[in-house]
Amino acid sequence: MSATIKSVAEYAGVSIKTVSRVINNEGTVKPDTLAKVQQAIDALDYRPNKAARDLAGRDNYVLGYVYDNPNAYYILAMQNGILKECRSNGYELLIHPCDATNPDIIDELVNMVNSARLAGLILSPPLSEMPDVLHAMDEKGIQYVRVLSGDKAPDDKPCVLVDDYQAARQITGHLLDQGHRRIAFIAGEKQHHSTTERQRGFYQALADHGIKADPELVIDGTYSFGTGVQSIQQLLALPEPPTALFACNDEIAAGALFGARMQGVDVPEALAIAGFENSPFSTQTFPPLTTASQPTAQIAQRATSSLIRSLQARKRKAENHTIPADIFVPELIVRESTSR
Amino acid sequence: MSATIKSVAEYAGVSIKTVSRVINNEGTVKPDTLAKVQQAIDALDYRPNKAARDLAGRDNYVLGYVYDNPNAYYILAMQNGILKECRSNGYELLIHPCDATNPDIIDELVNMVNSARLAGLILSPPLSEMPDVLHAMDEKGIQYVRVLSGDKAPDDKPCVLVDDYQAARQITGHLLDQGHRRIAFIAGEKQHHSTTERQRGFYQALADHGIKADPELVIDGTYSFGTGVQSIQQLLALPEPPTALFACNDEIAAGALFGARMQGVDVPEALAIAGFENSPFSTQTFPPLTTASQPTAQIAQRATSSLIRSLQARKRKAENHTIPADIFVPELIVRESTSR
Repeated sequence: MSATIKSVAEYAGVSIKTVSRVINNEGTVKPDTLAKVQQAIDALDYRPNKAARDLAGRDNYVLGYVYDNPNAYYILAMQNGILKECRSNGYELLIHPCDATNPDIIDELVNMVNSARLAGLILSPPLSEMPDVLHAMDEKGIQYVRVLSGDKAPDDKPCVLVDDYQAARQITGHLLDQGHRRIAFIAGEKQHHSTTERQRGFYQALADHGIKADPELVIDGTYSFGTGVQSIQQLLALPEPPTALFACNDEIAAGALFGARMQGVDVPEALAIAGFENSPFSTQTFPPLTTASQPTAQIAQRATSSLIRSLQARKRKAENHTIPADIFVPELIVRESTSR
Repeated sequence: MSATIKSVAEYAGVSIKTVSRVINNEGTVKPDTLAKVQQAIDALDYRPNKAARDLAGRDNYVLGYVYDNPNAYYILAMQNGILKECRSNGYELLIHPCDATNPDIIDELVNMVNSARLAGLILSPPLSEMPDVLHAMDEKGIQYVRVLSGDKAPDDKPCVLVDDYQAARQITGHLLDQGHRRIAFIAGEKQHHSTTERQRGFYQALADHGIKADPELVIDGTYSFGTGVQSIQQLLALPEPPTALFACNDEIAAGALFGARMQGVDVPEALAIAGFENSPFSTQTFPPLTTASQPTAQIAQRATSSLIRSLQARKRKAENHTIPADIFVPELIVRESTSR
């Protein structure tokens, strides 16, 4: 059970009113009383309700999470991570699913921020990668943090990086370590920066082993089961089919696995298959899928923490409050779909 | 693609500024222009962005969804339903998970409503069933809608009812129709009103068939896999074990199925098992579980619609704006775990 203002008052031996004065920095509390209350707050790990402070200070303690992503697991993990950080800092969370292709998207977001009086935004791909959106937010002075695919921050504004490039390089490296030399790659939509980063990692791993990618083995598709089914048919029909496949996400990989089994191709014996994302269903396929696990909730929490620190720095009018970007490398998870 | 202010302006042959004046009721638009714009809005089914109006009108267009429920699927379905209705009415959604047992819960909610300037709250069980919480909201004049388990609205304040009683009666009736007479019941936590409603439906179905429930066959537990495993052991050890089981949710049912199979009891041949809730994993067990499906997203949408209508009625200062409660009866889904 979390500490309450009442338990802090009891611990410190003062009235609730006094604790409230301390929390709200009213400056009317004697130094020794202040110390006692501060000690009680620390001892009980009490998180003063910033919403209550807000009423006094008229500051905004609501963040907005804006997303356009059909993956329910991803959204839920993002929300959980954001909510965790919001909670321990006294912030509330507004969620706003949207259509990133809507021509009015910028108006929509600006109106939302203004009307709901948001303190800042958390943006995940594809919104976090849309220069028009970011530019408009900058112009309106709206604070935000981005979750981005990449290994380098593109600027000094708050972001958290997911290093898809490195993870894809590791997955491909794993397939190479298993002795595979003809490795296929099925890409998802290229609008997602993560797609091109994963493809870049795939090429780099081949290059690391002195192998030139065979263009016949690289297929452009969408992040769908159907892409996997179709692409594997095409790949298996080649005069010299691949012995391994790296699919840009688990859904494509599951489709490819299904398609391969339909044609009587054994996985992993005749064809090793790896996905990406560690979706819940990557363990439900037979055999279960080798993949890369991205700690989405942790990424979201870190992003929210960056945003809150940047809001606080702004409030203190701190100059040069650049917060270094955290980098997360999705972790390789080897399962039976690739291990001989 | 949804209509934009620009497409409305083009359709009506007027400037965007004029459309904006119409939307904001500025009263400076000539009647025939107003008619043209109104016609364009109707023809294109344009939803004026209420957030934009809000800036002018200073009304609140943010609703809050407050929940304390560990079931991620339930929360996600609730959010989706609420967001759908919010979107088509120009509202934003703030989500606030909480611990209903927190002694400061009322302060927490009041502070949240005030600091985030919420227009109203959507409450799901257990919060929607806590008299103290509801009383405090009433006192503070905070509008809300409740999702409740029941077949009758307890008062004339906005609510949406989920008729667990009727659904449980149907599930039990299905087991009786299959010829079962010794039917066991495993309950979840009794704090949830839905638990007692499901149990009431179970007893009523037996009574409908002139059967008196055997107290030995009714077990109190928690909504957990473990309760299912333990309870089925206890039930199968009886001198005259049950031939069918109705578990208060799918998780208990899955545990009971697991426990029965561990003891070599065939399902459904020797023991029919039914769950409740139609959780995603109710189709993943072997055999898949008979259950009752609750259209959570639709329930959430209807609840949100009631709340918004009640907010609008209040704004118009309409007297007697009682909105009749919608009732949803979860639908029986028969699968192999009960069909001989």
